[in-house]
Amino acid sequence: MLTILAAAMAVPALVDLIAGYADWQIFGASALVTLFCGVSIMLTTQGKRTTALNLRQAFLLTTLIWTVVAVFGALPFAFSDLKLSYTDAFFEAMSGVTTTGSTVIVGLDHAPPGLLLWRALLQWLGGIGIVVMAMGLLPMLSVGGMQLFKTEAFDTPEKVLPRAARFAGWLSVIYVGITLLCALALYFAGMSGFDAVAHAMTTIATGGYSTKDASVGHFDNPTIDWIVTIGMLLGSLPFIAYLKMLRGDSRMLLHDSQIRWFLWIAVLASMAAAIWQVFTLNEHPLDALRHGFFNCVSVMTGTGFATTDFGQWGGFAMAQMLVLMFIGGCAGSTTCGIKIFRVQIAYATARAQMGRLLRPHGVFIPYYNKKPVPEEVSNAVMGFLVVYMLCFLVLAMVLGALGLDFVTAVSGAATAISNVGPGLGDIIGPAGNFAPLPDAAKWALSLAMLMGRLELFTVLILLAPSFWRG
Amino acid sequence: MLTILAAAMAVPALVDLIAGYADWQIFGASALVTLFCGVSIMLTTQGKRTTALNLRQAFLLTTLIWTVVAVFGALPFAFSDLKLSYTDAFFEAMSGVTTTGSTVIVGLDHAPPGLLLWRALLQWLGGIGIVVMAMGLLPMLSVGGMQLFKTEAFDTPEKVLPRAARFAGWLSVIYVGITLLCALALYFAGMSGFDAVAHAMTTIATGGYSTKDASVGHFDNPTIDWIVTIGMLLGSLPFIAYLKMLRGDSRMLLHDSQIRWFLWIAVLASMAAAIWQVFTLNEHPLDALRHGFFNCVSVMTGTGFATTDFGQWGGFAMAQMLVLMFIGGCAGSTTCGIKIFRVQIAYATARAQMGRLLRPHGVFIPYYNKKPVPEEVSNAVMGFLVVYMLCFLVLAMVLGALGLDFVTAVSGAATAISNVGPGLGDIIGPAGNFAPLPDAAKWALSLAMLMGRLELFTVLILLAPSFWRG
Repeated sequence: MLTILAAAMAVPALVDLIAGYADWQIFGASALVTLFCGVSIMLTTQGKRTTALNLRQAFLLTTLIWTVVAVFGALPFAFSDLKLSYTDAFFEAMSGVTTTGSTVIVGLDHAPPGLLLWRALLQWLGGIGIVVMAMGLLPMLSVGGMQLFKTEAFDTPEKVLPRAARFAGWLSVIYVGITLLCALALYFAGMSGFDAVAHAMTTIATGGYSTKDASVGHFDNPTIDWIVTIGMLLGSLPFIAYLKMLRGDSRMLLHDSQIRWFLWIAVLASMAAAIWQVFTLNEHPLDALRHGFFNCVSVMTGTGFATTDFGQWGGFAMAQMLVLMFIGGCAGSTTCGIKIFRVQIAYATARAQMGRLLRPHGVFIPYYNKKPVPEEVSNAVMGFLVVYMLCFLVLAMVLGALGLDFVTAVSGAATAISNVGPGLGDIIGPAGNFAPLPDAAKWALSLAMLMGRLELFTVLILLAPSFWRG
Repeated sequence: MLTILAAAMAVPALVDLIAGYADWQIFGASALVTLFCGVSIMLTTQGKRTTALNLRQAFLLTTLIWTVVAVFGALPFAFSDLKLSYTDAFFEAMSGVTTTGSTVIVGLDHAPPGLLLWRALLQWLGGIGIVVMAMGLLPMLSVGGMQLFKTEAFDTPEKVLPRAARFAGWLSVIYVGITLLCALALYFAGMSGFDAVAHAMTTIATGGYSTKDASVGHFDNPTIDWIVTIGMLLGSLPFIAYLKMLRGDSRMLLHDSQIRWFLWIAVLASMAAAIWQVFTLNEHPLDALRHGFFNCVSVMTGTGFATTDFGQWGGFAMAQMLVLMFIGGCAGSTTCGIKIFRVQIAYATARAQMGRLLRPHGVFIPYYNKKPVPEEVSNAVMGFLVVYMLCFLVLAMVLGALGLDFVTAVSGAATAISNVGPGLGDIIGPAGNFAPLPDAAKWALSLAMLMGRLELFTVLILLAPSFWRG
């Protein structure tokens, strides 16, 4: 992992070198440190490589990979001219690799291109990383009902790594392809080549890092807004559907109930926000549609781009944004949050329970995608939702205890655990920045981003004493 | 029910008559209207009385009773000199009978005593009503895991009414006894006899209506604060524990895990709030303890008295208050909210799930009160929590759509569905009032109070088409 990361650092180094910025040395130095650590670890563990992984190791490995990438990915930020403390640098890197998109950096407009590219790369790598993991590892870990997506290929831990590696190849091809398409579209819509590539990477990763302080709003271009909106939607669909489509089977893309629900929720929420703007802010209907779709999709998919300060849209829009933040996209996509399939299963489970109230001896089975949901999946999903809310509330209290005001604490907790990006309110809202927060809050938010990205339980389980016993 | 309500209206009529207020006529008129409707219904349904109730009728009856009491309980407010619209009057009555305690009335300090007593009476009747219902009816309806408290006496719908009637007698004696004790204590602590009785009634009912605009803060008396704190705690314990204690069995009061958890959470939250005040607001430790305990217990138990504007305590206290709002007290008490046993079962269930992640073939059973939790109870609790959060979020969005700002919408939704009383922020916070809200918001909040009081599903099920079919 570290050697790959070091190789990735060479890209921005090259860009800065070509563009004539002295910053290439920063990436060179970071790459050397990372490479040194990576090679050291490889040498000390040589001969012990194995493809068999037990459950405990799989949990530990998952959390460790994301943490280590953030620790080393922070180096270029820490070494740069931006004079970031390591706390800030780590926050930025964790926000990047978890595809959150919260930022502490002010002055992106004048930052060296290498640094901007590094931010985009972190998110892009984090995006493909989670897609591979969501298909190869998480179902096997049975985290929060993810066992629903267990394919027969992935049913034992021993087989996971080699299979994941083969799948990863195909997925990467698709991922690169969609990113390129998006970059081309953005380029032809008027972005510079560099901005187009950077934004395409963070759009498909539903990450939300921009090369501009004003985010995508900087370009103030309806075509760009709509391209990014579509790109975010594409990044939120299960990548396995694309894989199947390439193999000539587009049934999933057209008929999967998760995809349908996702698109319906996105469209309804965006329309509601648009109508709200037309009637309360007297916005032109077309502008309202454009802003409504862009910002609702951005928040719901956890991307976190902004074109306007939707904090100014009033109570309904803010409350809706808070709800959308939690929802997220489809399982097996680059999005975070609760995810659509859990919303569906929770709904079906609650319906079944309601039926049982009236006919205690009747048989009511929740269905997902026209198949009955196994009892343990339904339980795991409900457990996930309760723990999700609990983590959110605890984090909001911790942030409050660190001195943040109510709106910042509550929306900061929601945005971090759902890996969205901006929060609500003046400080961390779409027009704000996370830099003014105290260091302790940044560490707490970083932990929450990691937990949110890895479906909570993957990280929480490491805190259980029984994990380390025996 | 209506004839009882009409009889209850005679009490404030008498008080106003003795005190020399013309308001007694209002109560007289309200009582006549209520009595007329009650007797009409009795006459038209005469000869059809039955003690057997099927499930569907039980659900309908439960919701109807609470609604009808609010509809007629609103009459004295609507007829009074306060010039309340019927919307406001209904909101006030629903807030009363659900023991919420949100108010739209400004100028309590100068209101006629009959009206103040009527508010207290509504909450007091609502309090005993829910205790009887929580023991006699809800376990049979299996709402949200309440079947956990099913005693063998109450296992079939047919037996419910006669048994509940017998139980109700004993519970009422205990209820009246605790209220009298509380009233006496308040009287000796310096309240007038009238204020002591009114506050005792709304304290034990964890309702929170006060006879003063500044709530209990008006008296600014530490002894009164501590008495009310203890009274709220007493009202939040399961009343069956008192019943058992009277019969010489105080094991439940001392060893019930629900009671232990409740007291621990109350003490820890209050201490946290007190310490927070000492360090950030430089409050004197004793004052901080007094205010911390009073306001945390008031919010957690859903009473809603206030001694200070805890909205000024800063982010941590506000976030903690939002969490406490949801928690509530013990099942079988006068409190609302999620309730402690659900918190415990959710925790135990989540723990069991975590254990299963590491050892997929291990057996992990959640325990409550040292007994294994049946699968269907655990499922019902998780379902309840998810539906609770969903209702909260939907209500917050509805309130936002009606023009409320973010903090008012979010905390208003939380305070209504958890039947607390005041929300957060300038408008509906402890120093504010619900009067400025639009009418539609008041109806939405009234519905939420009803849903929160009747454990959500009892009301939600009436909205299901299948309920009305066949």
